[in-house]
Amino acid sequence: MKKEHVEQIQNVIEAAKGKDIKNIFFVACGGSMAALSLGEYFVTKDTSMASFVYTSNEFIHRAPKALGENSLVILRSHSGTTPETVDAATYAREQGALTVAISMDVESALCKESEYTVHYNYKDGSDAIDGEIGVYYTLLFKLLNLLTGEEKFLRGVDQLSKIDQLIESNQAKYKDVADAFGKKYKRDKVIYTMASGAYIHHAYSFTSCLLMEMLWIHSNAIHSGEYFHGPFEVTDYDVPFLMVVGEGPSTPLDQRALDFVTKYSEKVEVVNVKEFDYTGVDEDLKEYFGPALAGPVLRLYADGLAEHTGHPLSVRRYMWKMEY
Amino acid sequence: MKKEHVEQIQNVIEAAKGKDIKNIFFVACGGSMAALSLGEYFVTKDTSMASFVYTSNEFIHRAPKALGENSLVILRSHSGTTPETVDAATYAREQGALTVAISMDVESALCKESEYTVHYNYKDGSDAIDGEIGVYYTLLFKLLNLLTGEEKFLRGVDQLSKIDQLIESNQAKYKDVADAFGKKYKRDKVIYTMASGAYIHHAYSFTSCLLMEMLWIHSNAIHSGEYFHGPFEVTDYDVPFLMVVGEGPSTPLDQRALDFVTKYSEKVEVVNVKEFDYTGVDEDLKEYFGPALAGPVLRLYADGLAEHTGHPLSVRRYMWKMEY
Repeated sequence: MKKEHVEQIQNVIEAAKGKDIKNIFFVACGGSMAALSLGEYFVTKDTSMASFVYTSNEFIHRAPKALGENSLVILRSHSGTTPETVDAATYAREQGALTVAISMDVESALCKESEYTVHYNYKDGSDAIDGEIGVYYTLLFKLLNLLTGEEKFLRGVDQLSKIDQLIESNQAKYKDVADAFGKKYKRDKVIYTMASGAYIHHAYSFTSCLLMEMLWIHSNAIHSGEYFHGPFEVTDYDVPFLMVVGEGPSTPLDQRALDFVTKYSEKVEVVNVKEFDYTGVDEDLKEYFGPALAGPVLRLYADGLAEHTGHPLSVRRYMWKMEY
Repeated sequence: MKKEHVEQIQNVIEAAKGKDIKNIFFVACGGSMAALSLGEYFVTKDTSMASFVYTSNEFIHRAPKALGENSLVILRSHSGTTPETVDAATYAREQGALTVAISMDVESALCKESEYTVHYNYKDGSDAIDGEIGVYYTLLFKLLNLLTGEEKFLRGVDQLSKIDQLIESNQAKYKDVADAFGKKYKRDKVIYTMASGAYIHHAYSFTSCLLMEMLWIHSNAIHSGEYFHGPFEVTDYDVPFLMVVGEGPSTPLDQRALDFVTKYSEKVEVVNVKEFDYTGVDEDLKEYFGPALAGPVLRLYADGLAEHTGHPLSVRRYMWKMEY
């Protein structure tokens, strides 16, 4: 990892050490919120620290009372320009919280509004370790180590050096099946996603940003545990589900939902994160690397749909075209 | 309110007073989870107490580290038999948490597994104050009073005596428009819902339990703040949205989404909670009563669809028919 990124992350950790942090807020919009949410998942699972996720505008308007000088607020925006998230940084700072911006652009409004900045590279040919996955996971592992003292998270930092080749090998494994998915489902106007645990955030991201935003396909990210409490009644032989079976403690929830949905729908596609390539990753770290690798694999499924529908992922009707 | 209900709620408050409560977990599945979530919303908005919502099986499998003897865990199941929620009560009790079950059946497994029980009446002709809304809100107001010391929540308890007539007057106000909604949208196979703040839980409930479960209509509950970060690209002239404009701090988010969606879709229906009848409710309590009243009004929209599609809300393909 580039020295600049290592230093930025270390500065955040030192700042957190220097304060009596009592809660952590992860605040962003859309895909950035979903990506950040992995932090809330692991913080609540592995530590007794209170941790919350908010979409930026809800954060500002709800104005959670627990937010204050004992709060760490981690914000994220790819461009660093998302107005709601910039406002959320201002708001959090005004409440005395420690603010950290994650973005590809250190000169952005979000980074200027936040006390600390963690930068990641984007499409500049650099390795994944300096991209959004490597940088965010390094921050997360160091934060989890700070909060728990567990050495496994430092091993996690070391093993992130494998992230480049793991993304590559897993994408290679799923490339053809993702393309076949695009061919098979290109006529479908509704495609559900389903997942649980850390992966529900990938399902949300795939639903909101890839299916709805980029492909104009109706969707809903269903929690595998919630599936049986309402949504499953919509299941029919011709209703498609893209199911993520996670690597982590909630895998039994996914498996139960998968067993049911494959019985009643003929259109179920599975991304089984347990079967990913984890070469070089310790057994006790797989549940952390699984969500890191699921994103790039799922992306291929959107590429497959784009290819076969002839609807490029870059097309928008509203975004970049008007004020809203 | 019946003496039995008053006493049950008071017992919970006394038990909470007797412990050093550091966090509150709201745990249930589907519609019960959505209903409970109003608690998390108000607790995070009005108090600095950490508060979390979990679907029951995710709660058990994620096993949040913050759960312990300083936790209050409120669980809910209409029948009291939801297996995941019963297991969640067992799990929470094993971790030393104070457990409270909310159900219509005090003899149910959930109530037996939990230390305290709050019972509500169901379809027995009793007033709404003894039904699920009146009972849950009384508990919530007393809890908020305990946590904040604010007298307005005791006024809230008093003014709940109006809940019966307020449900009736607001349902009367929306009856015809909800029926017209059913006629207008009876051919639609996808209907989105949208809301924010406390109302996102109503949107979730309407989507999961009414549209998907009971009517087999595809749906997704979109957060008004998230709408602009992905989902809005799916908006088109013929894509229907049932929009809840809330009474509360996040109303500006709803209004912004409404302004946009009505520009690009010709099929937008609005339930404006700000325009509800609040006779007898103080100005500073309207944001609490709004979510209490939104449920019964939204229900009419499902009745309208059921009437005009000829698909009764009681029909299921999987529930009650098989093991899963």
